[in-house]
Amino acid sequence: MKLRTNFPEAEAYMQSCMIDSAHDTEHVYRVLNYALDIAKHEGGADIERLTIACLLHDISRTEQFADPNIDHAVHGSLKAHGWLVENGYSSEFAGAVRDCIETHRFRSDNPPRSLEAKILFDADKLDVCGAVGIARTLLYKSHVVEPLYSFTESGKISDGTNEAGKSFMQEYKFKLEGIYDKFYTARGFELAVKRKSAAKDFYDSLLAEVRECYGEVTQ
Amino acid sequence: MKLRTNFPEAEAYMQSCMIDSAHDTEHVYRVLNYALDIAKHEGGADIERLTIACLLHDISRTEQFADPNIDHAVHGSLKAHGWLVENGYSSEFAGAVRDCIETHRFRSDNPPRSLEAKILFDADKLDVCGAVGIARTLLYKSHVVEPLYSFTESGKISDGTNEAGKSFMQEYKFKLEGIYDKFYTARGFELAVKRKSAAKDFYDSLLAEVRECYGEVTQ
Repeated sequence: MKLRTNFPEAEAYMQSCMIDSAHDTEHVYRVLNYALDIAKHEGGADIERLTIACLLHDISRTEQFADPNIDHAVHGSLKAHGWLVENGYSSEFAGAVRDCIETHRFRSDNPPRSLEAKILFDADKLDVCGAVGIARTLLYKSHVVEPLYSFTESGKISDGTNEAGKSFMQEYKFKLEGIYDKFYTARGFELAVKRKSAAKDFYDSLLAEVRECYGEVTQ
Repeated sequence: MKLRTNFPEAEAYMQSCMIDSAHDTEHVYRVLNYALDIAKHEGGADIERLTIACLLHDISRTEQFADPNIDHAVHGSLKAHGWLVENGYSSEFAGAVRDCIETHRFRSDNPPRSLEAKILFDADKLDVCGAVGIARTLLYKSHVVEPLYSFTESGKISDGTNEAGKSFMQEYKFKLEGIYDKFYTARGFELAVKRKSAAKDFYDSLLAEVRECYGEVTQ
């Protein structure tokens, strides 16, 4: 596959680690594009650290798929650190990249600290916003064989709120709907809010169509 | 799994044949719901034949996934016919259901002939319309590990038009965008056109977001 950055070894290593559609190499390139855009607007970021952190942020998705107890952010941060040290990067550089990757996960009580870590976090979250976020969530749901929606105890289509199961509707309510408030940078937030209505419109349409199909009155 | 029709043997047999998310059992129940709605509006359909044809229309998806040379409509029609005869249905009934299933496929030069076959065709196409159609296409793309979009020879994001590869964008342009003109029944068409804008809006948003991310000017 053609390389697109000035860091061919890290880029080739990333490409060798990606497998599923939701976290494929184009996800990584989108995150990198967003991160460089945010960095340009925010100023002050170390572009080499940021680029390498973006390239390597999801290299342990395979391990998490194989064993859901593995946190791909923690695992990937250590894997990236080891790879960087082995490939001649300084211990300080490798440590900074490790810290970025460790804190990029949405469901974490370990927030990003450095500017580069905050930019990676925002860039990764941008790829969960809007139509792209909807598309990637659906690709992921198929990969883990989870349904679009489930039924309430009374047999109605659930809108996903406080759902015990793992449907697309539940994921929208639990993660996608509220992600627009989670940004660290002004530029990240600016790009995110532009995309909010595309995601909400899709969710609303999906729910209305399904409820109509099962003969339920749409609110 | 709980049964929902008056044909428990056929329903249980269908459930035993479904595997992937895009063509899961809820797809079958949505098709059945649409078909019964269309039949009510059109009048004159044999409800037992239609119900059994809906329940069994996708029972050979597994075979098609295992061998893409297999046409699940043709294979499923014969599989359904065999199952019906073995389970005490008359040869005439089994033949009518077989004909419905054989002609339900979108990409086929073998059009539906009976009223029940036309209703099954329309009901199945309704589940490719709107937000549900977008969602199912994305679930399917993940299942067959195909990307959201691809690049033109000049390195731009392709909108899917005349694309040689197999991306979501290509599928939207090739199948989803024009499906609203393919209905045989007035009720099917009426339900379909209501959903057109939800699908188009999603496609437009996805393309605009991705192009913006890669630094391309959106038209």
